[in-house]
Amino acid sequence: MKKLSGGSIWFETPLSVSAFASAAGPKENDGPLSGKFDFAAEEPCIGEDSWEKSESSLITKTFGKAIEKARLAPSEVDFVFAGDLLNQCVGTVFGLRDFKVPFIGVYGACSTMAESLALASVFISSGLGQNAAAITSSHFCSAERQFRMPVNYGGQRTPTSQWTATAAGCAVVSPKAQPPYITGATFGTITDMGVKDSANMGAAMAGAAYETITAHLSAHGTHPRDYDLILTGDLGVVGSGILRDLLHKDGVDISNVHNDCGLLLYDLERQDVHAGGSGAGCSAAVLCADILPKLQCGELHRVLFVATGALMSAMTAQQGESIPGIAHAIEFTSKVTN
Amino acid sequence: MKKLSGGSIWFETPLSVSAFASAAGPKENDGPLSGKFDFAAEEPCIGEDSWEKSESSLITKTFGKAIEKARLAPSEVDFVFAGDLLNQCVGTVFGLRDFKVPFIGVYGACSTMAESLALASVFISSGLGQNAAAITSSHFCSAERQFRMPVNYGGQRTPTSQWTATAAGCAVVSPKAQPPYITGATFGTITDMGVKDSANMGAAMAGAAYETITAHLSAHGTHPRDYDLILTGDLGVVGSGILRDLLHKDGVDISNVHNDCGLLLYDLERQDVHAGGSGAGCSAAVLCADILPKLQCGELHRVLFVATGALMSAMTAQQGESIPGIAHAIEFTSKVTN
Repeated sequence: MKKLSGGSIWFETPLSVSAFASAAGPKENDGPLSGKFDFAAEEPCIGEDSWEKSESSLITKTFGKAIEKARLAPSEVDFVFAGDLLNQCVGTVFGLRDFKVPFIGVYGACSTMAESLALASVFISSGLGQNAAAITSSHFCSAERQFRMPVNYGGQRTPTSQWTATAAGCAVVSPKAQPPYITGATFGTITDMGVKDSANMGAAMAGAAYETITAHLSAHGTHPRDYDLILTGDLGVVGSGILRDLLHKDGVDISNVHNDCGLLLYDLERQDVHAGGSGAGCSAAVLCADILPKLQCGELHRVLFVATGALMSAMTAQQGESIPGIAHAIEFTSKVTN
Repeated sequence: MKKLSGGSIWFETPLSVSAFASAAGPKENDGPLSGKFDFAAEEPCIGEDSWEKSESSLITKTFGKAIEKARLAPSEVDFVFAGDLLNQCVGTVFGLRDFKVPFIGVYGACSTMAESLALASVFISSGLGQNAAAITSSHFCSAERQFRMPVNYGGQRTPTSQWTATAAGCAVVSPKAQPPYITGATFGTITDMGVKDSANMGAAMAGAAYETITAHLSAHGTHPRDYDLILTGDLGVVGSGILRDLLHKDGVDISNVHNDCGLLLYDLERQDVHAGGSGAGCSAAVLCADILPKLQCGELHRVLFVATGALMSAMTAQQGESIPGIAHAIEFTSKVTN
């Protein structure tokens, strides 16, 4: 493991994602990735009596499934890195409460999956155990109530707004020699574009994605053409356009290889999600349900996964603050090349 | 660096806390540690127009002071690990927004200082840079408004309640050879004692402190008598008693070496803080204003710092959930012994 420039790290000995699992709500399982999730809820409550508990149950099911696939008892998981969007990350806390695994809580908003995967990779690369899990979630109804208004109020949504996914994803990082591999990571910096519209998160986060992609390509000496896919999450339609424009001004064209988790999870027009999906669980579930399997079977060869987060609260929005963004990146490959 | 049992890590080559700084509000600077803080606010607003911005300003001042003492430009800080108690950790985000440092957001409630210090130590021990900062904060008024009620309402406080400190602490971890040293860490597990009274956080967190201290002593093969100080934060009067009782049942007596950050920050009777201090900034400021200087000059030789967090939100309390706790530990020494 070697530190490169900025927040970039190169894993000279690639790590393996030894198992992964995903969970989704009914709307998410009605989209383009239908049938790819390990668990698909039939109704949004998932049998619980509050939206927060529903979100915790996504965490419990996804973590349980991932370690089952990795053939691990909870006691064999050395560390779990996890967080979510809820105040004080309670979705994760209550979802993982009964597993008794050393727990490292992270907060990166919708960048959490990349942040926790990067931390898990650093730990395993340092010889700190054999299995480190990264997990995150989001739930449409718990997020709407917390950040905007209870869904029952039927508030009108603007065209730039994104739909918080009811979803979760978990990946277990190990020092094995099987694809998908993790070969690099970049921890991003807080980047504030001055956007104050909390119904336009994609615009608020595009600058952070730009900074992190630029830093990662520069540190690793790579070019967009080296990747099958540069996958941001979750910029949606608006933020994706801004990101491409920002990179284009530097003479960097990612249009041939870029996609966004918020655009992959839903059929935007049919499912009425406006500018696309969002939420920490969106990029986590798209990664674990669609991208990691394609890397595992060799359908994808080299992917830069750039999860983006909007670092705001309902309080800072009410106080007129802008919405800073952050993006963390993970580089995956299907083969180890030396 | 070597992984021991559970969530414990041994830094075979000790790391150095190359610089540290603290900030406190007027009440905190009127207590037993008066005059020891790098920055002491004259009034709780600290010149800002919201409590959240006041808390961010504590972060800005403390981080700025710590890197000034370490003689570092922000660009020379490789990673910053930080979080706080506010929803979506906005105290930290806005406080660090302008520094452009690779940012790894953590959420560990009042265990944040130990969690972020342990992560910084793992990174530096792995050769990922020369300087990693750990920082956290809390503010009485932002916390009261968020978790209980606005202070202007003058709500009655119960005898078991603790006073959230207006304070912050920042420590920079480096691979230098100067005291204080970091020689070990233990990441804790989520531990639920079934306590539901959010005005009795000490009781809710005592079980987590018990689990982490037991795990740390076992993994490192140490005994309470090996330490000058086992310093929990922030169990207060009630939680400290429960912790000692829990350990006593195992035949482990820490009473001669135990103290608690929540008991050190305030004069409990004169300052009317009931069961003691709390808040992520309490243990961080006590560590950076009082403990690290004493390790630096050799007045303390070996300290086990066990920061404790209550993993709840106002929402989970309203929904009748119990309050799970977590504790992370860091072992400091004044000398390197082989």
